[in-house]
Formats: sequence, C-alpha cells, structure tokens
Amino acid sequence: MKPKIADILISNGIVLTMNETADEIQKGAVAIKADKIVAVNQAGKFSDWKVSKTIDAQGGIIMPGLVNTHTHAAMTCFRGIADDLPLMTWLDDHIFPAEAKLNDQKVYSGTLLACAEMIMSGTTCFCDMYLFEDAVARAAKDAGIRALVGEVLYDFDSPNYGPIEQGFAYSERLIEKWNDDPLITIAIEPHSPYLCSPELLQRSFSITQTHGIPMVIHLSEAQSEVEGMQKKYHRTPVQHLADIGVLGSNVLACHCVVLTDADIDLLRSHNVKVSHNPESNMKLASGIAPIPKLLNAGICVGLGTDGCASNNNLDLFIEMDTAAKLHKVNTLDPTVLDAPTVLRMASIQGAKALGLGEITGSLEPGKNADIIVVDIRKPHLTPMYNPTSHIVYAARGSDVTTSIVNGRVLMEDGKLLSLDLEKVMEDVNEIAKEIRNN
Amino acid sequence: MKPKIADILISNGIVLTMNETADEIQKGAVAIKADKIVAVNQAGKFSDWKVSKTIDAQGGIIMPGLVNTHTHAAMTCFRGIADDLPLMTWLDDHIFPAEAKLNDQKVYSGTLLACAEMIMSGTTCFCDMYLFEDAVARAAKDAGIRALVGEVLYDFDSPNYGPIEQGFAYSERLIEKWNDDPLITIAIEPHSPYLCSPELLQRSFSITQTHGIPMVIHLSEAQSEVEGMQKKYHRTPVQHLADIGVLGSNVLACHCVVLTDADIDLLRSHNVKVSHNPESNMKLASGIAPIPKLLNAGICVGLGTDGCASNNNLDLFIEMDTAAKLHKVNTLDPTVLDAPTVLRMASIQGAKALGLGEITGSLEPGKNADIIVVDIRKPHLTPMYNPTSHIVYAARGSDVTTSIVNGRVLMEDGKLLSLDLEKVMEDVNEIAKEIRNN
Repeated sequence: MKPKIADILISNGIVLTMNETADEIQKGAVAIKADKIVAVNQAGKFSDWKVSKTIDAQGGIIMPGLVNTHTHAAMTCFRGIADDLPLMTWLDDHIFPAEAKLNDQKVYSGTLLACAEMIMSGTTCFCDMYLFEDAVARAAKDAGIRALVGEVLYDFDSPNYGPIEQGFAYSERLIEKWNDDPLITIAIEPHSPYLCSPELLQRSFSITQTHGIPMVIHLSEAQSEVEGMQKKYHRTPVQHLADIGVLGSNVLACHCVVLTDADIDLLRSHNVKVSHNPESNMKLASGIAPIPKLLNAGICVGLGTDGCASNNNLDLFIEMDTAAKLHKVNTLDPTVLDAPTVLRMASIQGAKALGLGEITGSLEPGKNADIIVVDIRKPHLTPMYNPTSHIVYAARGSDVTTSIVNGRVLMEDGKLLSLDLEKVMEDVNEIAKEIRNN
Repeated sequence: MKPKIADILISNGIVLTMNETADEIQKGAVAIKADKIVAVNQAGKFSDWKVSKTIDAQGGIIMPGLVNTHTHAAMTCFRGIADDLPLMTWLDDHIFPAEAKLNDQKVYSGTLLACAEMIMSGTTCFCDMYLFEDAVARAAKDAGIRALVGEVLYDFDSPNYGPIEQGFAYSERLIEKWNDDPLITIAIEPHSPYLCSPELLQRSFSITQTHGIPMVIHLSEAQSEVEGMQKKYHRTPVQHLADIGVLGSNVLACHCVVLTDADIDLLRSHNVKVSHNPESNMKLASGIAPIPKLLNAGICVGLGTDGCASNNNLDLFIEMDTAAKLHKVNTLDPTVLDAPTVLRMASIQGAKALGLGEITGSLEPGKNADIIVVDIRKPHLTPMYNPTSHIVYAARGSDVTTSIVNGRVLMEDGKLLSLDLEKVMEDVNEIAKEIRNN
C-alpha cells in the first residue's frame, strides 16, 4: 500500500531519477515524508495526496543532489591564494605555510563556507579529507549537508593530533562520536602510499574492516609520485597497496591519474572505487586519468572537485562539463564519457563510491531525500531538447534553486536557509585577512 | 583638462583595466560620458564630478566586457539537440538537417537569445560566422551588443543567398548597409580552405583589402581537415593560404588546432590573429591547439566559445577556466596560460583579434564604454586574494550583474534591460518545437 501523505511534494518538473533504468519522468513529482523519498511519479498521480508543503519546480529539472567524492572543504580559506605555479613552489611557499595557521575553529569556518557553496550549487553530499575533521563533521551537520569525513593520516606529525598514534586515537573518537548520525559517516583516510608507511596503511585498512567503513586515500596522482614509489618499493603505488593487502571494495582511491593496465586490473579485481578530479588534475598539471579505460573495466568512478585551492570552486556542474569534454579530446573520440555517463558519475556512482549508494545518489522510494531542482527558464538553458545534455554541458551550479538533504530544505528559491550566509562569508574573510597579513 | 561631467559613474569596485600595464585599481571607479569612457581612477578622484547616474559595484570587480572571438550565435536554436556523436553523424544527421530549416527570421530569434545569454554572462562583443548575417547584425543592434558579423561563404549553394556570386553581393550589401553603425562591423568570412576554392579565398581577401575590414575563416580545426588538404593541395591549410596570398594582419583564423611549427611561423610572419575555442575543440574531439607556442611566438590569440551546439553555452568565464587548465595538463606545465594571460585573451587580445582593439577590450579614457561588473559577495568568490584569479578560476557568467555596451546599460542588477527576455526565450522554444516535430 502506497503512503498517501507527504511532508513535501516537489512538483511540476522533469524528473531525472538516476535509478537503474535512468527513468526520465515528464511532468513528474517527488514526494518526501520525514527524511525519505516515498514516491516518484507523474505529477497527476499525487492529486489525492495530503501534502504539507509543495515546491513548484516551474518546469525545471528535479534530480538527485550531486555527490562530490573528493574535496578538502576548508581549503576555501585559500581560494586563489596562489595559482599557476610549479607544484612544489605552490605547496611549500603558499599552501603549507597557510595550512600551518589552521585550527579547529578555522577549519569549521572554512568548511561552513564550502558547505554553503556546495548546497547553493547543487551538491548534497561530499567526501572530505583534511585536518581537524571533527570540525568538518560539525560544520556539515550544522549546514545540513551529508558528508563522509576522515582525518588525514601520515607518517609525520600533524598540526591537529601530533604523532600518528594520536591520529588513530582521534579517528577512533570520530567513529564513536558520529556513529549514529543521520548525515555524517566517518572514514579512515591515510594520505597516500608515499606519505604513509605500509604499517600505517595496513592498520588503517584493518580499522575500516573492523567498523565496516570506507578507507579514502590519494593514489597515483602524478608521474613524480609513481617514480618515487618505483624507486622506493620497485612497484607502482597500486601494486604496492595490493601487495600489502589494503585494497578492497571499501577503498576510495582519489585521482588515479597515472595507471598501468596492470594497475587497472588490480583496482577492478579488488572492486576499488575511484574519485576522478579532472579540474584539479588539469590545474596542477598532474595528467589525465584514464577514465574511459576504468569505466570499460567496470570500475565505479565518481566525480570530485578536490580542494578549491586547486580548482578554484566546488561547482560539480562545471566539473561534469570538464570531465565530459576532457576525455573526448584526450582520446580523440567524441563518444566517450557521454552526458548520461558523466551525470551518473556525479550522482549515483559517486554515492556508491562513498559506500552510500543505498542512501543517496538517485530518486527512488525508500532512499533518503537528497534532491535538487534546476531552473531552466534562462537563456543559456533555452531551448531544451534533452535535460541530461543541459545538466552536463550547459548548466552551472548557479542554476540550482532548491537543495534538500535528508528531507530538510537547505535552499529554496536560491536562498540558503540552513546558514547565515553573510556571517559565514565574513568569518572566512577574517581568516583570509589574517593569512594575508602574515 | 579633464572632463568633470559623467553620464554614468561605476564606483566602489576593484578596477581591472586590462590596459598595457594591467593596472588594478583598488576602490576604483570608471566614468562614462555618452558612448565613451572618460576617466578611470580611484573613486575618491570623482568626488567633485557631476554624475547623472551612479552604479555601485558593491566592492566587486569592474572590468572590460569580454570578447567572444568566434561563435555562430543562432545555433542557440540547436543547443543540446545532439551530443557525444562522431563528427560526421552529428553534422549529417542532426546539425545540417536542422540548419536547412533556418531562415532570416529564425536566425534573428536565435541570435537575440545568444545576445541575451552573452550580455547576461558578461560578453559585450562577439564575432559571428553564419547564414543570414543581416539578421545577426539586426539582432545584435537590437540587443545593444557590439558585433563583428559576416556571411559564411563556400563553394556550394547557400540556404541564404544561393550561388557564391550572390554571396559576395550579399556581403557587399552588408558592408554598405552597416557602414557607419556604432556597434556593427562587417567582415568577409569564407568558411575554410577545404570548403572554399582558391579563387573564392582570393576574392574574399581582396574585398577585405579594399574596404579595410577583417577576414574571418576556420583554419586547421582537425587532423582530418589537414589530411584532406595535404591530399588535395600537398600542403597544410596554413601553407595553402600563404601560397595563394590570403594571409594578413586583418585575418582572424579560428581554431588552429593542428599546426606545424612552419605553420606557426607563417601565422606569425603574416601577423594573423587566432581565435582559440577550447571547449568546442574538446567536445568535438578535434584536438588541443598549441596555444602556448602561439603565445610564445607573439601571435595575438583571442578566446571563443564556437557555436553553442558544440559547447553548449556561450559563457566566456567557463571558457577562460577551461583554457587555463587545458594547456597546463596538455603540456604538464602548471605555469602556462596563467590567469592574467587568459584574461587578456578574453578581453583586450580578443578585441585586437577582431580589429577592434582601439575601441574595446580595456578600460581606458577615450575607448568606448564596454564594461561589466562582477559581484563577488558569493560563497564561491569568498575570500578574494586576487581578483584576476577569481575571474579566471572561480567565477561564472552568472556572477555578472551589470553589462554596459557603448555607454548603454544593457543589464543592471542581473536584469536584462535591452530585450524582453521572456519573449526572446519563447520565440526560440517555438523554433525548437518545429525542429523537434520534423
């Protein structure tokens, strides 16, 4: 028996469900009760429902909120602080000194700003790797957005927790504290094979197995990393992780730019998930990840912006556009990464990559209500032959008017409801002033 | 003696002049009288001026309107009609049949929509190549935007003018009709070396020399084109144009994706201007133009979106972002096409590429008032360490709040003033309905 009561009905739109059969419902509607989607259907089917609040999509596109599978949210504090530099100059002279000034409060403020930006540009779930991740979790919760967060772990001392032993303790406390939270999930996040000893990696993986949670790691981001690993371990970073037994279906490998065919086989056979970050990889001149090959191998690939210091925004719409185009020119094949594939990467595949595929990433009864509405009554979205094409190739984050997470309306008519936007921006402007003056 | 009267003062912003020394004026203002910029200075310097209208930039960025050096504006009618297809399938099965339905009225409507989109995303000048270009000129004039327009010429019959002889007559009539227009300039626009006989090209070039106007041409867009030319003429397309004597400083060559070093030498020695269209080249899998090499050779390179059927929008902000990133990853050098260089390509260099460098593309007293204001009070533009970085890497066309062309305010506070936007969108929706039903 279908429920006949809804807290919210989003009506009068074209519904892109992103479900298994990629249903596109003309004149459709989505019903929400508490935190869940209870029905997805043509608008006419809801005529006898009792609805508390109706959101009129005005002929626009109703779709799942997007999933950002890799970012360092608080790096909003460093947006545009330095660009167009060699990687080591950028890191050593600009990013690392700025990061040394971070603390829990600044990470909280920077993350709130990132959450505001993401909610306002249609992202309803993100995966974070950074310092002071309890602050990230608190900010995400306060903003109302869904997040997978984990403290970055590496061999050297951290500005947050100090020595690595404390890093594991901090991570375990995160797991305990956020255990039953409806929005926040904790991951264990060793930085990379080149900044983490085999022991650190193995212990990280072991904790994820105990708790049934994801492990997130940077992997094979650039040629120099691979060369360093070859020198040290006489194998590729992927081969190294396989050899020490830390690849698995709960592992999210971010970047994966420089891969051999054997690496791809290993990722596939261990059912590792991949986060693709084209704009960051382009801006830092890291290289172009072999995404068509990964997709052909059946590997689950999500999309990510990376930190906005190397992007410099968190707009997944523009990231989709870039991803779709980059691989076409790289392979000289205009048919690869077609619009439906890229939209899946930014929604349901991204959710699966984070281990949240049962909860978010598509519009299906029983799933949590993570939904956005895109306004198409704009010159750059006129005319509309194909909604999916528009989402990938023509829309921008600023076309999103409504964002809902877990049944809560975070933005409506372009107005952010869950945060005091002026205050959020002011706080980060103050942080930037401090960084600039040092 | 400085004038002390202004029709419009844009005040309270950071002014990016894009003049020779790239002056950036903190707390600056720009004064406009009639169609001209009369002063660019710190806001305090205008305290004793008599000003009719003040536009408050609210701390945002005041900069030259952007210049789109290559588009087919009326292709807005086909936005998203087909994507992700092999080039010939896309053209033969979708674009050409749709274009066969065009006429003067439809091109007018499609161009009005493009003008609305461009004005609203900060473009104040564009170069068009298409059919029924008198309609393009009328639409641009009615929208109030600056444009360089020319009828596309090729060896076969045109849906507009029929045989080529009529094409030249049509072009000559355009030159005569629009001779003294303050916004519209006419160019002669042979399609490409592969669709135009040497005679057509030579006659085109000769007309441009007689009238002192630009010649616009597609050149070396894809490998297949170069191979075809090698087969037919035993030389590259650039070499072919040089040999038949149609390269010159008034020639704007669009795309220039596949170039030999000798080609680059020829473009440089003839002072040919280049229009770079990265998103279209990526989407159609044409290849990556050797822009760093062209810039190193001292060649003037502007930025273009190409028609929005292969993009699928006309947003030059996103085009800047893509250009800056694409060449970094292509050369594996994060320092190439830095933000200042890319912003110059989208403004003053673009203006020079169209032969309009004395009129538009920078904020300098005596130049025509083609100016935009970017609102930075948004999460994705917070904080701001560097305005140029924000324009290239973080902003989107939707951040533009004010667009002024030739001293006329076309958009203010995000509201388009020069056109009835609802009607413009409705007209193209009707055209799309007709195309869809055929």
